[in-house]
Amino acid sequence: MSPPKAVVLLSGGMDSATTTAIARSRGFEVYALSIRYGQRHAVELEAARRVAQRLGVARHEIVDLDLRAFGGSALTADQPVPKDTPLDRIGEGIPATYVPARNTIFLALALAWAESLDARDIFIGANALDYSGYPDCRPEFFAAFERMASLATRAGVEGEPVRIHTPLIALSKAEIVTRGADLGVDFGLTSTCYDPAPDGAACGHCEACLLRLKGFAEAGREDPARYVEALGREGARARRR
Amino acid sequence: MSPPKAVVLLSGGMDSATTTAIARSRGFEVYALSIRYGQRHAVELEAARRVAQRLGVARHEIVDLDLRAFGGSALTADQPVPKDTPLDRIGEGIPATYVPARNTIFLALALAWAESLDARDIFIGANALDYSGYPDCRPEFFAAFERMASLATRAGVEGEPVRIHTPLIALSKAEIVTRGADLGVDFGLTSTCYDPAPDGAACGHCEACLLRLKGFAEAGREDPARYVEALGREGARARRR
Repeated sequence: MSPPKAVVLLSGGMDSATTTAIARSRGFEVYALSIRYGQRHAVELEAARRVAQRLGVARHEIVDLDLRAFGGSALTADQPVPKDTPLDRIGEGIPATYVPARNTIFLALALAWAESLDARDIFIGANALDYSGYPDCRPEFFAAFERMASLATRAGVEGEPVRIHTPLIALSKAEIVTRGADLGVDFGLTSTCYDPAPDGAACGHCEACLLRLKGFAEAGREDPARYVEALGREGARARRR
Repeated sequence: MSPPKAVVLLSGGMDSATTTAIARSRGFEVYALSIRYGQRHAVELEAARRVAQRLGVARHEIVDLDLRAFGGSALTADQPVPKDTPLDRIGEGIPATYVPARNTIFLALALAWAESLDARDIFIGANALDYSGYPDCRPEFFAAFERMASLATRAGVEGEPVRIHTPLIALSKAEIVTRGADLGVDFGLTSTCYDPAPDGAACGHCEACLLRLKGFAEAGREDPARYVEALGREGARARRR
């Protein structure tokens, strides 16, 4: 019997890389989906390619979607990426890096591919603890999407529900680091930064970098990513104060 | 006070043109959204431009989205469009022209734009009676999408629900023709055909043409669209037998 197929949203960051490894560890044949959505950090897509190749996915597709016409986010329009937000204030409000309805759009695209593949399972590396205040990272959003998706598709008509898997939803960044490392994820291949240098080095100051560094520090591991300034474990710990 | 904004999905067909006119008649400032999704009938997008201009929308955006990587539909892949399906059999199963998760994707894109515009209202010209068997044209799908959308967005976080308007959902094609004509829609600008000639003339034989012709015939009106073969009201009536 061939393994069941799953579509996994793969941005190239540490969360989606860990999610891909988890989907594989659960016995799924992985169809990795990345979206080129007019964002500034195309560096992420290179990371997604490397991660997909290393983790041996069945297929990796990159779909082009230009959301710049809609504006409304630091990641798609010309607004500055916030830097050096105090860690205890990340997640307080909805940040400027929020892309309107991004997870809704990405899951909708994953759903289309899943339906074409006759797959029932979709994985997304969303995280509700270190979630930076995005409304579409909350568990109740994913539950509502799952219900909608089952009504939207042939699967729904035939009574076979779609499952949206969010294996990281309740994990801390430190737990994600540990889980990914246990499953053999090479975090040196991943890219997390909202504002990387042209050579792909992470800035170390945006909210994504700050949360990543905190995660590695709390997991007691060195972050193998390249940063613009050299930041060891001590640097990451210093940032937490 | 400025009028409330609404995002209206405008394909360029008779249903979405009528829906645009209805949104205007209800006092909304219309932001029309068309999707260029790798479909064969780009003729529709030209129709969308003409309709948007004629109906005086505030803005018309066309978003590129190439779904061909996913395959799975006669409208995006190289499968033949079904022709001359008997009218009483249209809607029996899910047809080959079904695009996986299309309405989910289109509504997700509309939601992103609505959020950027600070709009709460989205219109889609879906129709459950003459719906050709698409699972994502059913009222329960739209209700589930609306619930999900309110959880996905800032609006949801702030307790302001998103509304998905489906003003055609319970209308017959004939009622849509009458409603659109009453609101001044020029159906000669619209394009419905799944398989138009290069010059935009409709084939008259695909399921979309058959349903359109039936609608005009039942409404007792001449269809002003151009067909490859000249089809008057009598031709349309003959087809119904």
